[in-house]
Amino acid sequence: MLTLYTMPGSCAFASHLALEYAKADYRLAWLDFRRTEQRSAEYLKINPKGRVPALVTPRGVLTETPAILQYIAQTHPAAKLAPLDDPFALADMNAFNSYLCSTVHVAHAHKTRGNRWVDDPAAIEAMRRKVPETMTACFQTIETEFFRGPWVMGEAFSVSDIYLFTITGWLAGDSVDVARFPKVAAHHAQLSADARVQKVQAEVKAVA
Amino acid sequence: MLTLYTMPGSCAFASHLALEYAKADYRLAWLDFRRTEQRSAEYLKINPKGRVPALVTPRGVLTETPAILQYIAQTHPAAKLAPLDDPFALADMNAFNSYLCSTVHVAHAHKTRGNRWVDDPAAIEAMRRKVPETMTACFQTIETEFFRGPWVMGEAFSVSDIYLFTITGWLAGDSVDVARFPKVAAHHAQLSADARVQKVQAEVKAVA
Repeated sequence: MLTLYTMPGSCAFASHLALEYAKADYRLAWLDFRRTEQRSAEYLKINPKGRVPALVTPRGVLTETPAILQYIAQTHPAAKLAPLDDPFALADMNAFNSYLCSTVHVAHAHKTRGNRWVDDPAAIEAMRRKVPETMTACFQTIETEFFRGPWVMGEAFSVSDIYLFTITGWLAGDSVDVARFPKVAAHHAQLSADARVQKVQAEVKAVA
Repeated sequence: MLTLYTMPGSCAFASHLALEYAKADYRLAWLDFRRTEQRSAEYLKINPKGRVPALVTPRGVLTETPAILQYIAQTHPAAKLAPLDDPFALADMNAFNSYLCSTVHVAHAHKTRGNRWVDDPAAIEAMRRKVPETMTACFQTIETEFFRGPWVMGEAFSVSDIYLFTITGWLAGDSVDVARFPKVAAHHAQLSADARVQKVQAEVKAVA
């Protein structure tokens, strides 16, 4: 049994959806962000970084979306969520996921998490203003350089599709129109119709 | 034959050092950051993100340090640079590397790359001021929560040691005294004495 610590609207949605695609034996532990439970003493024992996702496994706790996604894929090979037997293709997939984690998610975080990097309220506001521009630049790069079609990595569906779907879902809130990126928009629409995505979205909505 | 695109002082040092530890068949392609060659039309064909590292392999180009490090470890198993046969331990290692990439490197980047996230010069200066505090917080977390000893992940050396060594090397320039973190400081001193590290450092120094 796996337990995923998650919060509505967070990138932990990707791990949640990957567990669903993997048909994993898992349960959810929702943190209440209104009570900043992710920084409670109890949760910091699980993840000292005070963030989600955290996946509690029989061996210990895993954090960080790219690491969790590969773990779910490797431990549920029947679901075919990653090119497990091809180190180059696996690294290629992980490079995409790492870009989402360290560049795209970080660009987005400057909207509401500016106090991680500055104290000055005017600087926090300056960060917030630039988010539509940086997110547009990131998705332009994804659209023109990385998205192969029909799935992110080409013919084979992978956890990169799940992760991209998650972050594409943030664009409207970042004042970026996904329609500017036709391939990404079609990908998002296609996955939005998937029963597994709709199940996970309904579970999020029920606690949000 | 592998070709690593790199720049002095960049995080590509980790991939360079991993290739050395792996005894890989590789060559270096140095980009001149004074001429911003990383954003030249020629280099953007190799890595549209305009950053290093980029590892050119017979199958194509790989980017992003965590992905490259796992690739080097998987394709050079004799070097024992990662727990390749244990999905949990591999994910645990990748979680550490992802934290370095998406949190610690990002904290550091607010010193000299602030224009990625704001336009206002005062905001860029506000970001720069907070870097010693954020880098201290990151390394405090590494010291107390993640570093197991004698190596990052415990008994076995891994690419996480190479990656941590790389970023620890930035602390002095970020006005943080590594001596505040005794375990990290000892780790850095031990690796600094390694002949492979000294070879790679000399190669960087020759072009810097």
